[in-house]
Amino acid sequence: MKAVGVVVEYNPFHNGHLHHLRAAKTDTGAHICIAVMSGSFLQRGEPAIVCKWTRTKMALACGVDVVVELPYAYSVQSAARFAEGATNILATLGCTHLHFGSEAGDITLFHQLVQFMNENKEAYDFAIKEHMQKGVSYPNASAAAFRTLANGNETLLRLDQPNNILGYHYVSSITQQHLPLIPATTVRKQAGFHEKNIHDEHTIASATSIRHALSSGQELSNLSRVMPKTTISALEKYMLQVGHLHTWERYFPYLQHRLLTTPLSHIRTIAECEEGIEFRLNEAVYEATSFADWLQHVKTKRYTQTRIQRLATHLLTGTTKEMLSYIHEQPVPYIRLLGMSTIGQTYLNKKKKQLSCPIVTRAAELKHASTLGALDLQVDQAYALAHPPAITQRILKQTYKQAPIRI
Amino acid sequence: MKAVGVVVEYNPFHNGHLHHLRAAKTDTGAHICIAVMSGSFLQRGEPAIVCKWTRTKMALACGVDVVVELPYAYSVQSAARFAEGATNILATLGCTHLHFGSEAGDITLFHQLVQFMNENKEAYDFAIKEHMQKGVSYPNASAAAFRTLANGNETLLRLDQPNNILGYHYVSSITQQHLPLIPATTVRKQAGFHEKNIHDEHTIASATSIRHALSSGQELSNLSRVMPKTTISALEKYMLQVGHLHTWERYFPYLQHRLLTTPLSHIRTIAECEEGIEFRLNEAVYEATSFADWLQHVKTKRYTQTRIQRLATHLLTGTTKEMLSYIHEQPVPYIRLLGMSTIGQTYLNKKKKQLSCPIVTRAAELKHASTLGALDLQVDQAYALAHPPAITQRILKQTYKQAPIRI
Repeated sequence: MKAVGVVVEYNPFHNGHLHHLRAAKTDTGAHICIAVMSGSFLQRGEPAIVCKWTRTKMALACGVDVVVELPYAYSVQSAARFAEGATNILATLGCTHLHFGSEAGDITLFHQLVQFMNENKEAYDFAIKEHMQKGVSYPNASAAAFRTLANGNETLLRLDQPNNILGYHYVSSITQQHLPLIPATTVRKQAGFHEKNIHDEHTIASATSIRHALSSGQELSNLSRVMPKTTISALEKYMLQVGHLHTWERYFPYLQHRLLTTPLSHIRTIAECEEGIEFRLNEAVYEATSFADWLQHVKTKRYTQTRIQRLATHLLTGTTKEMLSYIHEQPVPYIRLLGMSTIGQTYLNKKKKQLSCPIVTRAAELKHASTLGALDLQVDQAYALAHPPAITQRILKQTYKQAPIRI
Repeated sequence: MKAVGVVVEYNPFHNGHLHHLRAAKTDTGAHICIAVMSGSFLQRGEPAIVCKWTRTKMALACGVDVVVELPYAYSVQSAARFAEGATNILATLGCTHLHFGSEAGDITLFHQLVQFMNENKEAYDFAIKEHMQKGVSYPNASAAAFRTLANGNETLLRLDQPNNILGYHYVSSITQQHLPLIPATTVRKQAGFHEKNIHDEHTIASATSIRHALSSGQELSNLSRVMPKTTISALEKYMLQVGHLHTWERYFPYLQHRLLTTPLSHIRTIAECEEGIEFRLNEAVYEATSFADWLQHVKTKRYTQTRIQRLATHLLTGTTKEMLSYIHEQPVPYIRLLGMSTIGQTYLNKKKKQLSCPIVTRAAELKHASTLGALDLQVDQAYALAHPPAITQRILKQTYKQAPIRI
């Protein structure tokens, strides 16, 4: 049985994801599709709008056969680290291909760029350092370094589009680690990655625009053009159960509390807290009336919004530099199974014995799986705090007992 | 100018306090009255229902001439430590007397008991240890030890009543430290310290019963029989400004968050966290739907509710054992002035130059005053978190700029 892997956040699952899933199977001739999905918090340092179990149901309902979790230590990270975790997990699970959507849509371009970057690594790193010394952020410095390097070379893949960047890191990670995965890509349909508004005539909209529509009070039923029915009903059920979608604003009081009652020496041990930014974090609490406002007060030319959001997520979840250091010891210490279809289960049963790491099916096992597993549990506990105490308590208990979803 | 000192929480200021104030001046012939008052959190490990500035206004409106703050390091502590901080501050400010209300009402009994306890210290300590080894709480063990010791001696002060206990510790602290303070006491009028209900015909009710009435939704106007008008209007103004009184329930989410996202090794550094109680604290979060519920889950024969509440307060405020250890280095490193009348100001101006420590009038100075001062600021920041973020931010700014109240 041939399996294709995809790397997803499904926040929430929409028609663009459905289109990509179909292409992944068609393009690679795979029998089943395995998704490695971020858990409670996402790459840009934001809480997922609904819990990972609801997003797993959305995925299974639309043709994914196995959903496993990308550990927090990889999911709230730079593109390179994120890709490293995702590709390792898909390779461990025996996928033959990794399939991703991109703006470019031509896998040759990705291979060429990886080769080009390997050949020019030193010049590239040097140029980045030079730009950063002028005080610009890492993403801007690397973009500028790339422009200098690629000067005049029109055939090179453009690295200024978010899905091209992720795709580049997948291919680069596979190449550098010699993983037995064949990368493949397809052009992303219609909507831009971070496009804010939903076009009237389109059936595909970006997840960003869908979240934007939801947070500005649009009825779910109005979004049925751009999401599968199963997503709509899963979102409805979630809102009925807990009353709201998760946004950073709901967690802001905890960030205020942590920053106001933790000595700076301890704040400095938090992951991504570097170069004296702790002073800014703290001062901004005295100025900010909301999370969005706090971000504006902390942001500088050097620290992008995404970087601050990731740092805020680490503060919220209590993630220290020391905890994240374990990803270098062992890239995949365990695989957390979130859900599977019948055929997905058959696949896993066959592969189980050859796996180089345990498959974890309960939170209780996570605690003992490794430092990264214990961190995943801690992160889910923090995620549960978006509700009044009595609902939080109910969710904590559920989180602890939850078995993988089966359909 | 002769000054009498009183030790207070004023949570809130009521007719019983007014009665005591008058007795304090009459009994001692003092010209002015100085109150050393707990700040944001109180001796039993609870948030004050309104901020210390509002409580200062209540006190000044009813005849207190100077209000200074009992630092957090003393205010959320056992009776002995609480008394040590309070008596030291009053002595530093040049009070000639310390006046307190008690169930006994006869100062000779307190002096006798202090002498008796000094003579029997070893036997008493030994008996406490014996009782505690059977797993009972410290308060129960010391009560039992006292019963054994006092066996048959009917003339001794009874130490099973809360104001007698506090009074005993005031007199004991004055005696042991040879402080130039003359202790004096009067009988508490009518209401029992922790009495829960307000009697219809009484004009004096306990603060506990008043808080109970307020939290069960009684109109403030219904309580005008038992509190001065100035207290009623101060409470009204506070509720108008921030929307509610402070209760532990409003802070419970922060406690959940801290316990769910902080490694046990760090929880162990928190003040009063001893003997493996950290495991219970954590497990109880999984069971509790409210703070009251959480307390029930943590409480044991050994750990009284008050002790758990104090520990919870230290968790909320981020107070470590190490921070509290500074109280042994220097009992009164600074005196925080909260408010004064005109005559109070005259008194302070005269005394200022002879004081052995600085008088702090702004939060900004606290930061640099000492570790205990920085802790007081941190504690006030935690106290401000009972509100939605935008109100919290406004209060944080106010807290930082607030000058002493003058009337």
